[in-house]
Amino acid sequence: MIDLRSDTVTKPNETLRRLMAEADVGDDVYGEDPSVNELERYVAELVQKESSLFVTSGTQGNQAAILAHTRPGDEIIMDRDAHVFIYEGAAMSVFAGVQAMSLPHTNGEMNLDEVERSIRSDDIHFPETGLIWLENTHNRGGGAVLSLSYMKELYTLAQRYEIPVHMDGARLFNAAASLQVEPSEITQYVDTVQFCLSKGLGAPVGSMLAGPAPFIKRARKVRKMLGGGLRQAGVLAAPGLYALKHHREQLHVDHQHAQKIAEALRTWTDLTIDHEVQTNIVVANVAPSKRSVHEWVDLFEEKGVRIIPYKAGSLRFTTNRDVSKEDIEQVIKVIQELGAS
Amino acid sequence: MIDLRSDTVTKPNETLRRLMAEADVGDDVYGEDPSVNELERYVAELVQKESSLFVTSGTQGNQAAILAHTRPGDEIIMDRDAHVFIYEGAAMSVFAGVQAMSLPHTNGEMNLDEVERSIRSDDIHFPETGLIWLENTHNRGGGAVLSLSYMKELYTLAQRYEIPVHMDGARLFNAAASLQVEPSEITQYVDTVQFCLSKGLGAPVGSMLAGPAPFIKRARKVRKMLGGGLRQAGVLAAPGLYALKHHREQLHVDHQHAQKIAEALRTWTDLTIDHEVQTNIVVANVAPSKRSVHEWVDLFEEKGVRIIPYKAGSLRFTTNRDVSKEDIEQVIKVIQELGAS
Amino acid sequence: MIDLRSDTVTKPNETLRRLMAEADVGDDVYGEDPSVNELERYVAELVQKESSLFVTSGTQGNQAAILAHTRPGDEIIMDRDAHVFIYEGAAMSVFAGVQAMSLPHTNGEMNLDEVERSIRSDDIHFPETGLIWLENTHNRGGGAVLSLSYMKELYTLAQRYEIPVHMDGARLFNAAASLQVEPSEITQYVDTVQFCLSKGLGAPVGSMLAGPAPFIKRARKVRKMLGGGLRQAGVLAAPGLYALKHHREQLHVDHQHAQKIAEALRTWTDLTIDHEVQTNIVVANVAPSKRSVHEWVDLFEEKGVRIIPYKAGSLRFTTNRDVSKEDIEQVIKVIQELGAS
Amino acid sequence: MIDLRSDTVTKPNETLRRLMAEADVGDDVYGEDPSVNELERYVAELVQKESSLFVTSGTQGNQAAILAHTRPGDEIIMDRDAHVFIYEGAAMSVFAGVQAMSLPHTNGEMNLDEVERSIRSDDIHFPETGLIWLENTHNRGGGAVLSLSYMKELYTLAQRYEIPVHMDGARLFNAAASLQVEPSEITQYVDTVQFCLSKGLGAPVGSMLAGPAPFIKRARKVRKMLGGGLRQAGVLAAPGLYALKHHREQLHVDHQHAQKIAEALRTWTDLTIDHEVQTNIVVANVAPSKRSVHEWVDLFEEKGVRIIPYKAGSLRFTTNRDVSKEDIEQVIKVIQELGAS
Repeated sequence: MIDLRSDTVTKPNETLRRLMAEADVGDDVYGEDPSVNELERYVAELVQKESSLFVTSGTQGNQAAILAHTRPGDEIIMDRDAHVFIYEGAAMSVFAGVQAMSLPHTNGEMNLDEVERSIRSDDIHFPETGLIWLENTHNRGGGAVLSLSYMKELYTLAQRYEIPVHMDGARLFNAAASLQVEPSEITQYVDTVQFCLSKGLGAPVGSMLAGPAPFIKRARKVRKMLGGGLRQAGVLAAPGLYALKHHREQLHVDHQHAQKIAEALRTWTDLTIDHEVQTNIVVANVAPSKRSVHEWVDLFEEKGVRIIPYKAGSLRFTTNRDVSKEDIEQVIKVIQELGAS
Repeated sequence: MIDLRSDTVTKPNETLRRLMAEADVGDDVYGEDPSVNELERYVAELVQKESSLFVTSGTQGNQAAILAHTRPGDEIIMDRDAHVFIYEGAAMSVFAGVQAMSLPHTNGEMNLDEVERSIRSDDIHFPETGLIWLENTHNRGGGAVLSLSYMKELYTLAQRYEIPVHMDGARLFNAAASLQVEPSEITQYVDTVQFCLSKGLGAPVGSMLAGPAPFIKRARKVRKMLGGGLRQAGVLAAPGLYALKHHREQLHVDHQHAQKIAEALRTWTDLTIDHEVQTNIVVANVAPSKRSVHEWVDLFEEKGVRIIPYKAGSLRFTTNRDVSKEDIEQVIKVIQELGAS
Repeated sequence: MIDLRSDTVTKPNETLRRLMAEADVGDDVYGEDPSVNELERYVAELVQKESSLFVTSGTQGNQAAILAHTRPGDEIIMDRDAHVFIYEGAAMSVFAGVQAMSLPHTNGEMNLDEVERSIRSDDIHFPETGLIWLENTHNRGGGAVLSLSYMKELYTLAQRYEIPVHMDGARLFNAAASLQVEPSEITQYVDTVQFCLSKGLGAPVGSMLAGPAPFIKRARKVRKMLGGGLRQAGVLAAPGLYALKHHREQLHVDHQHAQKIAEALRTWTDLTIDHEVQTNIVVANVAPSKRSVHEWVDLFEEKGVRIIPYKAGSLRFTTNRDVSKEDIEQVIKVIQELGAS
Repeated sequence: MIDLRSDTVTKPNETLRRLMAEADVGDDVYGEDPSVNELERYVAELVQKESSLFVTSGTQGNQAAILAHTRPGDEIIMDRDAHVFIYEGAAMSVFAGVQAMSLPHTNGEMNLDEVERSIRSDDIHFPETGLIWLENTHNRGGGAVLSLSYMKELYTLAQRYEIPVHMDGARLFNAAASLQVEPSEITQYVDTVQFCLSKGLGAPVGSMLAGPAPFIKRARKVRKMLGGGLRQAGVLAAPGLYALKHHREQLHVDHQHAQKIAEALRTWTDLTIDHEVQTNIVVANVAPSKRSVHEWVDLFEEKGVRIIPYKAGSLRFTTNRDVSKEDIEQVIKVIQELGAS
């Protein structure tokens, strides 16, 4: 089976497994795990923030960010397809008591005038606008990359109103690879950022949260409450650090693979790809076709390719480091066969 | 001054004041206030629900409804201009831990296909859709009345998915007066409803929540937690009941007054009224004019008419029972003067 | 029936009813109700705090205080019989996300060493001690009055740790009457205080929250979220203000009545009163008797006296301004009859 | 350094490291990690519950249990030294909106009459008693083991009131080793249980939550919200399973070591050990001595032994599998030296 359901399915390779086994560890709740400490220092440097924190997942990083940034009754301006709004079980309202001011967007970019109009004035009836949220790359936007100019403009706006900006950068390095810039050229336009070690980078478990030191101090306490204070976390940090250092440069290969898949799909007449393929995600709308999304998923599965239904009427193909050049050729063959059927 | 800021500014008349003074009272936390009990029975009958509850405000009725209907992690489908989303301090997220799935709308009516698409399927990532929310009349929709056919269709959809429907009917009787129907013809299409005694009806304080008996039992407990368990509440219930019985029939006069105001405003060339005036609210967009919203508010104030800025670039005029026919004539004169200036 | 269940059952007298009917009112959400404004000014002066706020109940005042003082994850040190811990539906945890550090007490006074030991140090595992809570008079402590020396010592301790102190003074004026001091001699030892207009003072509805201006500003917003932002609230404020000015001086009569009841009860051999009767509450432990609490309640009821079961094995008698000298004589007769039976 | 601060500091041995490196893994969010699935099956069998769930820490297991068992406004009866009350940042109130009814206890055992009296009756003022909480072994009780007869009585009581019982069994296997029974003989008296793989058992990261299948289904969703949904979690599950199978039988050695430490400490005249040493924890009260807790900690540290200050005036020594027989002999020598000084 060729697994294109997500880049979360990547398995640790031999090197990562060896690093896990050899990791220098300590009790991270006491701050004594050297591998975690090294990772946290490296990450702060990489994204040019004061401090960083290992968390067990992107969701935990996002929720810790919200709990550290906001107070109950705050409102977060975000696009209405954001992962935190769609896929995190309303945890921001349950745990942090905040409300989502969810706006329309184009490939993850909200209209800046609408963002500005959505910032609340001081009134006894209103929530307070406590945070502005970006997602980059944008998952439901088909792996779209936010432009640096957009990020800069949004950040300038936010600073004018003294509202912090957080970026769900679960796939930050796909964005950086696509833009061909250092990650810090992106993260300079946000106050805090979360990114994943366990998606395209191929580490087994873990994400990072970075930002100002007082923010990370609060997030560290919140992480404990969420149950993310681990003991010998170095066994996860060590392979995570390696993946971060050495697997980033290969992400562009996944992007090329996604391009090839999109190319093949575009030969179908009853299918549309509504977005430019910029990274490792292809979202294909099969609503015009005569088969349901679930029928398509089954047909691909029968032919050895696993994909997922996505939003109403679409299929998502996600390339990742466990899918080789040969696999992609096979996927293309399957697409051609199914398109002709 | 002629006060058109809201219908909340109405003051109790002599009859209501006398009824307050003469009210038969008891301790309502013990369920022993005869005036409250009589009001709650009358309301249940009026909106054809099993049971009802006196609350101190529309906000308290809405929040009690949410707390009684939902669990933390639920999502409420509502239009993105709903009072509960815009004007209640994100209380639904703070107190009930629920998330707003806020949708676009036209005069308070959401697209039903979009409502259906927004209902969550069973997935570990998703909030659960716990409630669908309507507002009728729709405040930010310019006092728009939801059509009975829309309400019926939405209710049918909701029942198919076994999701309860709540209506913020703060101005329910304005809707009924506009449609020229009994309130129960509207409330038949919702599971629970909140309406206010203190707006157009002119009672000094109070709103009602109605629905199935087990729902009201939970809401009664929640009301206690919110601090809405009053002692000799009959002093509010007695005038409330009178206003409900005798002031409803006069709401159509407020509507005629609003029509006249709209007519006068429409003679201005640099102003638009984007909605049909169906009830007692007129929202006039003065963005095309050469003055700011706040300048307009001040100009009206100087001429003895109080109105409020409303949404970006608009003014809101709200007629109410304390504004007489003569007052309206004076308002029209002011509009003509300012329009000519 | 002579109703000794609570002082909440007091009904407004003719004067209060007249004041309600004649109240000068406005829309209090806009801050325009002159009667509310006058009451709030008077109260701030009376308890010598910067600012005050009308709320609809003691519970609402307490919850607004918690929401305005704390952040989620804070801990409140309180005695384990506090009204806010026992009788408010865990609202402090539901709405404010705070934890009760509930301590043993004697007549509402906690051991100050234990209070100090319970203050949390700075540690990633610990909640933060955000508030210390007093109740005066202490309801489950049998209407006990906290001594001024205790209050002073506790306040000194709290200030040393920079932790604010709130007092649930639902029956503050009973405490002041018992100590024969001005209310402000008590409230000087707390940062914020809540007291009720609707218990012994006899107003139909309402309580007051007082404290520093920024605290009251936050509480005002929180009150709106709780649904306590009323419209023409002056109809409640006007009688409340009168009751506050003129009914305080009569509370000592209720205290004498309670003394007489206690005296009569103490003649029973199978009953104990474990507390000194200082105010208007008598809690009599009938566990040693051969009848259950509910049997005793019924027996009193049959003889025209209503009381309530209270804590395990006890009966509570609460005197109030609607119970006359003659009523008390009748109650004593009933006690004598039942004691002899 | 000999590290007796906690059993959380144990580091994975070579076998565990190898198993990590060789673990068969998949995406556990999709339920496809074979190592996790095997561990979850094994645990359900071991503690004789329907289902189980891997979580990243004891805190996460406890919080997921609370979120899955309760509703906001519920109250949990627990002893006032419970880990969940003292060391989890009030997360139960922040995340689940529940209140702690914290009771006195002796070595973790609450008085059962007091437990029964603390169960709330149905009343509009009261929280609902939603859960009874046990901790076994009891950390602040000095590693005390709850007797089986106590557990049985408490469980019978809870079942009579239809209230579920959860056990924080972070050190469940220490309890089982001390009682010389199978874990399931303990867990038969609770509905749900959490225990740690990462403390005395020596696995690097992870805890387990077990209970009825519908409970675990809810907990799985809650775990996702907490950010505990990991990807290739098998790298933690594989060593966890091995530790669970093979390291349990060695816990009695830690217990013997603790006995020896206690014996040595008891020779000091200015120190008391207020509890019977039943497992791997010794809490020594040095309040009677002439040195402060922090001075003692430093003195031990200087001599190569790390311990922690614990509660007011005490030191905690915790033996664990990384502390050898020779280490213990050295610790005893240090104790003797310091006792003589």
